[in-house]
Amino acid sequence: MKVPELSLVLVGFGHVGRRFALLLTEVADRLDFEWRIVAIATGRHGSVVDPGGVDATRALAAVAADQSLDRLDAEPRQRSGLDVIRQAAALLADDAAEGRLVLVESTVLDIDRGEPALSHVRAALEAQMHVVTVNKGPTAFAYNELASLADTVDRVFFFEGAVMDGVPVFNLVRETMPAVRIDGFRGVINTTSNFVLSALEQGQPFELALREMQARGIAEADPTLDIEGWDAAAKTAALVNVLMGGAITPHQVARTGITDVRATDVRDALARGRRIRLVATARWQGHTLLARVEPELLASDDPLAGLADTANALYLTTDLLGEVGIVQREGSLTQTAYALLSDLTRISLRLRDWTDQ
Amino acid sequence: MKVPELSLVLVGFGHVGRRFALLLTEVADRLDFEWRIVAIATGRHGSVVDPGGVDATRALAAVAADQSLDRLDAEPRQRSGLDVIRQAAALLADDAAEGRLVLVESTVLDIDRGEPALSHVRAALEAQMHVVTVNKGPTAFAYNELASLADTVDRVFFFEGAVMDGVPVFNLVRETMPAVRIDGFRGVINTTSNFVLSALEQGQPFELALREMQARGIAEADPTLDIEGWDAAAKTAALVNVLMGGAITPHQVARTGITDVRATDVRDALARGRRIRLVATARWQGHTLLARVEPELLASDDPLAGLADTANALYLTTDLLGEVGIVQREGSLTQTAYALLSDLTRISLRLRDWTDQ
Repeated sequence: MKVPELSLVLVGFGHVGRRFALLLTEVADRLDFEWRIVAIATGRHGSVVDPGGVDATRALAAVAADQSLDRLDAEPRQRSGLDVIRQAAALLADDAAEGRLVLVESTVLDIDRGEPALSHVRAALEAQMHVVTVNKGPTAFAYNELASLADTVDRVFFFEGAVMDGVPVFNLVRETMPAVRIDGFRGVINTTSNFVLSALEQGQPFELALREMQARGIAEADPTLDIEGWDAAAKTAALVNVLMGGAITPHQVARTGITDVRATDVRDALARGRRIRLVATARWQGHTLLARVEPELLASDDPLAGLADTANALYLTTDLLGEVGIVQREGSLTQTAYALLSDLTRISLRLRDWTDQ
Repeated sequence: MKVPELSLVLVGFGHVGRRFALLLTEVADRLDFEWRIVAIATGRHGSVVDPGGVDATRALAAVAADQSLDRLDAEPRQRSGLDVIRQAAALLADDAAEGRLVLVESTVLDIDRGEPALSHVRAALEAQMHVVTVNKGPTAFAYNELASLADTVDRVFFFEGAVMDGVPVFNLVRETMPAVRIDGFRGVINTTSNFVLSALEQGQPFELALREMQARGIAEADPTLDIEGWDAAAKTAALVNVLMGGAITPHQVARTGITDVRATDVRDALARGRRIRLVATARWQGHTLLARVEPELLASDDPLAGLADTANALYLTTDLLGEVGIVQREGSLTQTAYALLSDLTRISLRLRDWTDQ
């Protein structure tokens, strides 16, 4: 069986994109595909396109030294992420036609419209590229459109990392729970808020905990997206759209963040054996889909109560399997980067099936 | 795309086998395959082989009325499960050659040697049948042999229901966690013991709780297998063999059941905010694989402490994703039967891929 070689276009090269580039090399001997990075687009460090292969080590070093990637390009120029996608698609049209050209999207979320990720995904699919992303924007704002476009062009649009990093949520349902109907869910799915609430329980200051999450590269670039519940709302919309057949945006999720949660409330709850957690919920009420994110006071035997620090969990309400939970006991950048890797493996599997025919 | 038609040989037609036959009909409109039952073998209610299709409703009615299935057979005879497998394979050699003949195995576990399930699986694979089973015996006693045999004959050997019913454990790792190394696990995986311990916490008698589990069809036919830890040990061996590359049997799992757990211990623990649970554990210590099942006194923040009644959970220790948990909040016969259905769906998917070539 031939090992597929994937040509990767990295759009977004922040904490996650850079960890992904390293992780690929670290676990190369376990992967059933080969790859080369043919382009990298960043927000603040220029871009490089090289169909012969970008040297990841040099790219990582350049960004670490706060230098522009333009210096790695034979013909450097001012390019947006969208420009890079289109240029790569034009230069590597054969790879695209063979289904070996992949957009690896990890830009920063814009909660107003899901951009620029949404346009990146759309442009890549239109250019016959597969898409893997950790970005919540595309599924939270336009899942149905993008999934249908992917079907039409016979390419995949995968986004395992949009919720709970590399711990399977979307693949869990798609690959391991066939014929099961998802009637709703309940989860703790924003790591930064959970870390902050856990810190408050321990008597630590809100601000310090938030800075710790930023230092670890886990908080959003704009951490108000975390603490005001926008990140959880985007994930809720993504889950509703993908798993429950909904068609909502994060703006349709009733949302209360943890900004107004007082340290004394958190500690009083703990003293009574209870916990305050930022809980995301969705369920059908008749034909109406109720989706919300808000701090809840949880009883000690609530399965979400025991989640501390960087733990996440999602409990799905199903018809055939009752309530099924998937739990991530600790979150890290490696896990987010792994999500992209696991999605790439699914593409590779698909290419093998094609090649075998 | 053609919808595959599977020919099913049901060996074992107890609580699980009968619930499976019903469930197939209940969710028929969600399945991407068609099927007919071509044989049923039971331990105490005879057997029937009919390549034209056995009427499931009549078979269910016969067993419910404590009648023999022989009356549904044109040429009834005394047959073992093994006889039925061989006869079906001979009569349906074309289906077998086309990969559409499937053994659905749900016999009772014999903890000494994993028989008769092990022989059933081996014989079916040798006859070019696919195999799906909820039985722990085959994976607990001979996973490596059977997986290798399945590879050789290009048929699948699936067993999702061997641990945590239809909630994905084996498929979770195989299908959604590529390139991840499983270094160990810890779980509450015997429903009956957990139900009994929960009942003791509530001041209910051991015997009453055990009878309740028998009445629901959840306890093993011989419930001492549950309360003496054999069921959990068999599942532990299955997990070790499949997920950690081990080659052990249940007899190599250090095992203590809940027979000697006193109600006062359980209630004292609860009064101190702690729980006693039957915990299955495996991990590598150097090159030695440690596997054990024993009642543990759990702190209140242990993720296994909150599991009550029929809940199960398994926490996998991984290298790339940290600790990942999968939780079944309630167990029922439907969920066990669903495991067979989810495995059949994977076979159907494979047949579609073949057909498309």
